[in-house]
Amino acid sequence: MKKILNTPEGYVDDMLSGIYKAHKDMVAPVSDKLRCYHAVKKTPGKVGIVTGGGSGHLPLFLGYVGQGMLDGCAVGGVFQSPSAEEMYEVTKAVDGGAGVLYLFGNYSGDILNFEMAGELADMDGIKTCIVVGNDDVASAAKGNESVRRGVAGIFFMYKCAGAKAEQMASLEEVKILAEKVGSRVRTMGFALSPCVIPEVGHPNFTVGESDISIGMGIHGEPGIRVQSMMTSKEIAQEALDTILQDMPFQPGEQAAVLINGLGSTPLDELYILYNDVAQILEQKGIDVFKVWAGEFATSMEMAGASISVLRMDEEIKALLSKPAHTPFYSNPQL
Amino acid sequence: MKKILNTPEGYVDDMLSGIYKAHKDMVAPVSDKLRCYHAVKKTPGKVGIVTGGGSGHLPLFLGYVGQGMLDGCAVGGVFQSPSAEEMYEVTKAVDGGAGVLYLFGNYSGDILNFEMAGELADMDGIKTCIVVGNDDVASAAKGNESVRRGVAGIFFMYKCAGAKAEQMASLEEVKILAEKVGSRVRTMGFALSPCVIPEVGHPNFTVGESDISIGMGIHGEPGIRVQSMMTSKEIAQEALDTILQDMPFQPGEQAAVLINGLGSTPLDELYILYNDVAQILEQKGIDVFKVWAGEFATSMEMAGASISVLRMDEEIKALLSKPAHTPFYSNPQL
Repeated sequence: MKKILNTPEGYVDDMLSGIYKAHKDMVAPVSDKLRCYHAVKKTPGKVGIVTGGGSGHLPLFLGYVGQGMLDGCAVGGVFQSPSAEEMYEVTKAVDGGAGVLYLFGNYSGDILNFEMAGELADMDGIKTCIVVGNDDVASAAKGNESVRRGVAGIFFMYKCAGAKAEQMASLEEVKILAEKVGSRVRTMGFALSPCVIPEVGHPNFTVGESDISIGMGIHGEPGIRVQSMMTSKEIAQEALDTILQDMPFQPGEQAAVLINGLGSTPLDELYILYNDVAQILEQKGIDVFKVWAGEFATSMEMAGASISVLRMDEEIKALLSKPAHTPFYSNPQL
Repeated sequence: MKKILNTPEGYVDDMLSGIYKAHKDMVAPVSDKLRCYHAVKKTPGKVGIVTGGGSGHLPLFLGYVGQGMLDGCAVGGVFQSPSAEEMYEVTKAVDGGAGVLYLFGNYSGDILNFEMAGELADMDGIKTCIVVGNDDVASAAKGNESVRRGVAGIFFMYKCAGAKAEQMASLEEVKILAEKVGSRVRTMGFALSPCVIPEVGHPNFTVGESDISIGMGIHGEPGIRVQSMMTSKEIAQEALDTILQDMPFQPGEQAAVLINGLGSTPLDELYILYNDVAQILEQKGIDVFKVWAGEFATSMEMAGASISVLRMDEEIKALLSKPAHTPFYSNPQL
């Protein structure tokens, strides 16, 4: 294992210390609890949005805390859920009197802890509710959506729910909007290499030297199959066939597209992939509203990428276009 | 070699096709010449700024073409200079009547071709001048700055020169400003792994499995030395000692800091490194104006990072703070 760090045990806390130092105008820990991360700016009367999950996925999760997106994040160890207590601390810090939406990926540890945090918050009179991202089409068959994992597509849920909350919508309205966006986004990922958890020191799984793992999760969860490396065109075709079969488009509908790098995949390759994605979508008569390419949900130094497609409507289009500004993501108002 | 591509020969053109499709509202090729890349928006009377260089370094170079930064870029093959003809085509496309600044990294092939492009432009009555970035302290000793390579620190030159040109400064004024910023920025890099040129198919150089190459260039140029892997603190200490010995700070001066990932280094590690950088700068009494952490000048999937330090003054501070918006970098006006 070769990583830039001081000790494997300090990986998460040293990273958090660096982020707080670098962006102290925008984010801060809740009363010196490094893993309870929240935006410096608080808007009274606005619904708070809190996320959380394991570390190792930057910018996911904490990277979306900031203006126009999320209000706080409970930060776990690498690939580990944060505690209910940490989630509760963040909840208290961000509540502006209008309640708090818990918006995070569909993993059982996170769900259990967020449910417990919600009970603690309830005793303080803070209303909370839960919406999970479950966009990974490769993780369970159609009809079984409730057990699908949440991956990069949650970016769209964060962006739209954050913009909705900024419009001073109610907790119920922000929840309904987040669920709508979640129901309209699908992601398919593929991995070319494993990654190393710092405290473990070696890969927990492998991908053969000439292989691609189709549908592998961002913690190395097994995907649909492993096969010989494919071309960009073949990857794009399989991902879009799978996504569009799962979520058919009506004629004339628009899509937003997210080409997400898993960690060590160069930006060049993400745009090569998008070039093929765009050609296939054009053949299918689907118009692209906007595309994002870069690292949005990683698995440390894993190689590979994911393709997310969001079915647009007018409300989603307007919310995606609103400005946002966090230390890790900016959508400028021009 | 495992890369997301269709053919190694198509790597650069497929990447460019993807970028033009993804960001057609912002950038376009000059009359279908894919490798002549320019911003869609043109401001008459503004000094144009053109860069260029080999591919494989995204967001460098083309990623900084857009509002508030650069106007065009000539795009070479992976690690190869673009042609003088391509530079000349971009020059004609971006000239708004006030002349064009060529601002690029200090590599001999690029210099020769930009000089030739300038001669061609001169025959069309377009005035040009050249400023090169040579921020890599590890590439030549003090006193020999003119042969130092240009690396990530050129980001600061792009940002400030772009903002200066937007203020409708003259070509001479933009040139002087770019030179000033260049004279105040130093970078030190280190590599943990090699990268693979697609058309070669295997690494052109190696870094031992437990080693770090201090001062290695972004094309794998040999650095100062190779040694056993260091901790983040040790790396930060050596880089800052080298930079600050080369460019001493006066008491009370501020610095801007860029922590740049070379390709496959997770964001987590860049912030761990910044945590150490910040502590050392604080000990030395240097105040950090702002820090950028992420991928700004890469070497495809190379692992490693670089640390750049920019000595601030009031003019640079103001220019750094101006808004910018490109497909790869945004500095929002809030």
